[in-house]
Amino acid sequence: MKKHILVIPGDGIGQEVTTWGKAVLEKIGQQGGHEFTFDEALMGHAAIEATGTPLPDETLEKAKASDAILFGAIGHIKYDNDPTAKVRPEQGLLKIRKELGLYANLRPIMLFDELLGASSLKPEILKGTDILFFRELTGDVYFGEKKRSDDRNTASDLMIYHRYEVERIARKAFEAAQARTKRLCSVDKANVLEASRLWREVVQELAKEYPDVETEHMFIDNAAMQLVKNPKKFDVVLTANLFGDILTDEASQIAGSMGMLASASVGDGTGFFEPIHGSAHDIAGQDKANPLASILSVALMFEISFGLKEEAARITSAIDKVLKDGYRTADIADAATDKSKILGTTAMGQKVLEYL
Amino acid sequence: MKKHILVIPGDGIGQEVTTWGKAVLEKIGQQGGHEFTFDEALMGHAAIEATGTPLPDETLEKAKASDAILFGAIGHIKYDNDPTAKVRPEQGLLKIRKELGLYANLRPIMLFDELLGASSLKPEILKGTDILFFRELTGDVYFGEKKRSDDRNTASDLMIYHRYEVERIARKAFEAAQARTKRLCSVDKANVLEASRLWREVVQELAKEYPDVETEHMFIDNAAMQLVKNPKKFDVVLTANLFGDILTDEASQIAGSMGMLASASVGDGTGFFEPIHGSAHDIAGQDKANPLASILSVALMFEISFGLKEEAARITSAIDKVLKDGYRTADIADAATDKSKILGTTAMGQKVLEYL
Ligand SMILES: CC(C)[C@H](C(=O)O)[C@@H](O)C(=O)O
Ligand SMILES: CC(C)[C@H](C(=O)O)[C@@H](O)C(=O)O
Repeated sequence: MKKHILVIPGDGIGQEVTTWGKAVLEKIGQQGGHEFTFDEALMGHAAIEATGTPLPDETLEKAKASDAILFGAIGHIKYDNDPTAKVRPEQGLLKIRKELGLYANLRPIMLFDELLGASSLKPEILKGTDILFFRELTGDVYFGEKKRSDDRNTASDLMIYHRYEVERIARKAFEAAQARTKRLCSVDKANVLEASRLWREVVQELAKEYPDVETEHMFIDNAAMQLVKNPKKFDVVLTANLFGDILTDEASQIAGSMGMLASASVGDGTGFFEPIHGSAHDIAGQDKANPLASILSVALMFEISFGLKEEAARITSAIDKVLKDGYRTADIADAATDKSKILGTTAMGQKVLEYL
Repeated sequence: MKKHILVIPGDGIGQEVTTWGKAVLEKIGQQGGHEFTFDEALMGHAAIEATGTPLPDETLEKAKASDAILFGAIGHIKYDNDPTAKVRPEQGLLKIRKELGLYANLRPIMLFDELLGASSLKPEILKGTDILFFRELTGDVYFGEKKRSDDRNTASDLMIYHRYEVERIARKAFEAAQARTKRLCSVDKANVLEASRLWREVVQELAKEYPDVETEHMFIDNAAMQLVKNPKKFDVVLTANLFGDILTDEASQIAGSMGMLASASVGDGTGFFEPIHGSAHDIAGQDKANPLASILSVALMFEISFGLKEEAARITSAIDKVLKDGYRTADIADAATDKSKILGTTAMGQKVLEYL
């Protein structure tokens, strides 16, 4: 198989972790006789520093010309504390999502048995949890009109959805539910929000086309609660952009750490694969970041963009073995971890390559 | 002390639980020689059935004329599954919040030691957690303009904040932080939302007036995650209406059950006290609901509206003793609970009266 992959390291720990995602791509490429070629591009704070804009045209062109994109992380504390900044790293990520039509963000919450102890939740609550989130990614209050009054005393963002936006992601979620345990939970706030009422109407209508799927509707406040109380009750969860942002970060604690969660953004064209963790500037450049989410993003790329299911499974099982042998990065270590097996980014990346 | 209290039972389990909140008010009134008088009014589904509107004028007048309001719960499954309904129970609650100027919703997450085991979180993660949420309650996407296009294919809600709205609740939160451990965490999504950028600007400015308070800003996705990972790190949490709705329900799992959490809504006039749980129609009328959140709402009423701190403490300590003696409602029982001590609503309410 011949594929051209664009690597966008982005900000903070992005560079360190994508190094290992890319290394895994190369290794599997060699082993399987695939011809993977690579290019690299800037986005976020790194791009602002170099070009003045968070998503240079060149990056967008390269993205459109590639078969898949491996992304690192975005953001910088400098902008977080300056709410008046006009140019912001995150604009790069939002723009590329929109420009590539990446309307469906898939976030699987899978649990490595070895990490049951690393979570704040009790093992008996966690065991058996397997959730696949479908987060809408190019609509909602993220992309609706933003306004600031001239006196700067009033600010607003429009939370808006169109029927076709809800429909296309809902279809993907229903199809995924059919291939899994046939349960779908759609999360909204239809008791208060008009956008949510449209959301619920569309999902209710579509549900009739998928009679084999058991469809449930839940309010976001209740969902945020149930996710902690009884995560096992969820299978496929479908939700809007903002609610999905919140719920999937919350759900990361089920997997023990954000450092273990990968995501796939798909839609009209090239697929985009990234860890759900952020740029974590506090540990950047210190060889401390967990590269497993980037490596798991590559597994998602194999499965979703290249249809290489076996290769994807090999990556997951290599990570499983590394964990079974007791190796951990600091974020997933606990009191029971053998101190000599706590690895930095590089050593963990190499360990996975070795086990592949 | 002479006080006139309006009881609004509302929907579902609201009637059952407020019965016991009111009974505690009466008992403490007698014991302390206070003259508490009561009136009752309709709101929500109950009001729609009786009058066609979720907040009858009569209820609003009675509310304005009272010294404090004890509310039960709102909502009905019939409307949840009908996104096209024009008249909805929740409109009653939203309207009374707005009309009474109840812009600050205080939600204390306090942990009864006896219930450490009832949570999904590990006891060592929970122990020592004590959070006070300040949720803004009369602004945000809840009250911004709602629109539906004529073809019904586009729906929107305006997420909007004015400077004065952020300022007045932020002041209350800073003051509360000063009286506690002097830490305030303001939660927003300033990397994406203009309304959040205004929010962050205002909080940053005010922070200068409270130099003794350590102020932190956190994105909502991160906060939803940290709340599970390490709830102890929070003291006072200040946030907008929608984010507060989500975070406080999530945080209810720290207290073991939604059935244990009370809230106070205050602002320009009469204070409004209610459990954070919903109408729970699935268990309504079965003597199964936990009345403790309603009783704890009364404790908040004593403390906040009447300045009767000692009486408030007596309620909390009566509940503490009931729990120490092993009594539980079903929602807070666990495997270790003596089955004979699992009580229904009535028996639990009576138990608290007995211990008072
Ligand atoms: C960085 C930020 C704009 C982004 C989002 O909110 O979508 C991130 O939190 C994510 O979940 O990918
Ligand atoms: C019933 C609903 C409108 C309400 C809200 O979202 O504010 C409830 O969830 C709450 O938290 O009080």
